[in-house]
Amino acid sequence: MITLYDLVFQDDRRPSPFCWRAKFALKHKGLAWRDEPVGFTEKQKIAFAQSQTVPVIHDGPKPVKDSWDIARHLDSAYPEKPLFGPALSHARFVAHWVDGAVHLALFPLLVGDLYDRVRPVDQPYFKESRGKRLGTTDFAGFQAKAREKGVDNFRAVLEPARRVLKEQPFLSGEQPGYADYSLGGAFLWARVATPLELLLPDDPVHPWRERMLDLFDGMGRKAKVA
Amino acid sequence: MITLYDLVFQDDRRPSPFCWRAKFALKHKGLAWRDEPVGFTEKQKIAFAQSQTVPVIHDGPKPVKDSWDIARHLDSAYPEKPLFGPALSHARFVAHWVDGAVHLALFPLLVGDLYDRVRPVDQPYFKESRGKRLGTTDFAGFQAKAREKGVDNFRAVLEPARRVLKEQPFLSGEQPGYADYSLGGAFLWARVATPLELLLPDDPVHPWRERMLDLFDGMGRKAKVA
Repeated sequence: MITLYDLVFQDDRRPSPFCWRAKFALKHKGLAWRDEPVGFTEKQKIAFAQSQTVPVIHDGPKPVKDSWDIARHLDSAYPEKPLFGPALSHARFVAHWVDGAVHLALFPLLVGDLYDRVRPVDQPYFKESRGKRLGTTDFAGFQAKAREKGVDNFRAVLEPARRVLKEQPFLSGEQPGYADYSLGGAFLWARVATPLELLLPDDPVHPWRERMLDLFDGMGRKAKVA
Repeated sequence: MITLYDLVFQDDRRPSPFCWRAKFALKHKGLAWRDEPVGFTEKQKIAFAQSQTVPVIHDGPKPVKDSWDIARHLDSAYPEKPLFGPALSHARFVAHWVDGAVHLALFPLLVGDLYDRVRPVDQPYFKESRGKRLGTTDFAGFQAKAREKGVDNFRAVLEPARRVLKEQPFLSGEQPGYADYSLGGAFLWARVATPLELLLPDDPVHPWRERMLDLFDGMGRKAKVA
């Protein structure tokens, strides 16, 4: 029988989002468990697992701590009903994250430089369509104001990618895949439009961007830039 | 030979992030293509594809528009070297997005109610550890201030999930998977801690949350709540 150590609040409330992940994952596998509530001041209950935080599970001979490692353990010990779903859906998520968060944070930082590099014949089109979106056609002024605030917001938005890239060379794992190409597209958009440096050299996203520029005989690196 | 219609700026610059996705995807498959630059005012060039935007590719008998559909087309027409990488890495990305963006936006809205529901014996621990993180131990005041600004920021952070859930019932596809459990954990954290309503009824995330509460005989719905 698996034991799950679960954070407990007053009146047996169970709030921990990470413990909920573990409970969903156990249910997904159709596994039963023995519940062991742990308060913030009862860390001695999980000391045997060399853990300071819940969830911890005890499944057979050795304990597993950390919700992610628990999910991986369950998928390898109980291979029926894989937890990780079709890769296509997840790549779709990353693409939507790029469109709905990264591009949104990036566009105000680029829009003036983008406008300056649109072919003259196309500038009226850009002015009308992007002007409507931004509520102004003073793209240089809009960009200047955005840059005054700095690129911290853009860098904050990259946090999920940063965390993944601390652990593995590409968003898709050991090899690049569509998730990488989605975020790579955003960086090439910026690179072609503006000399503005978006990343600090010690940011884990920085060496990944270098790898993306090198891919396919340096296709991205060779692109005509700002 | 595949033709790729690619957005062009001055001096043959190619900025479009979506066209870059298509170029990376073509290279990933080892496919060559004929390049067809398209300015903003040359939409007639892609009219044959019933598209208003690039990228468009023309591969054999029929055109394919939209960078996502192009990726799917390439993966189905050229199954070698799949574009979508191991599902595990992508689920990891979603988990990191929940930790590094969703939880971050949610915590200030909950922290006062969370504190009130910690077991009295554990409250000093919560006060010290979370106080350090927030720079204050006035959790009620911190929460009130966060709620004054409203939940719009939290809802904006959910945008990538919202876009996926407009297209399919779960983040993992037709069936729930670990990506869903990660985001589900965040909503259960909130549900157990506070009666604050986080979602508008017409938000596509709303029916997904209902489905998550119903999963596994209503495990989440039955949890003791605020």
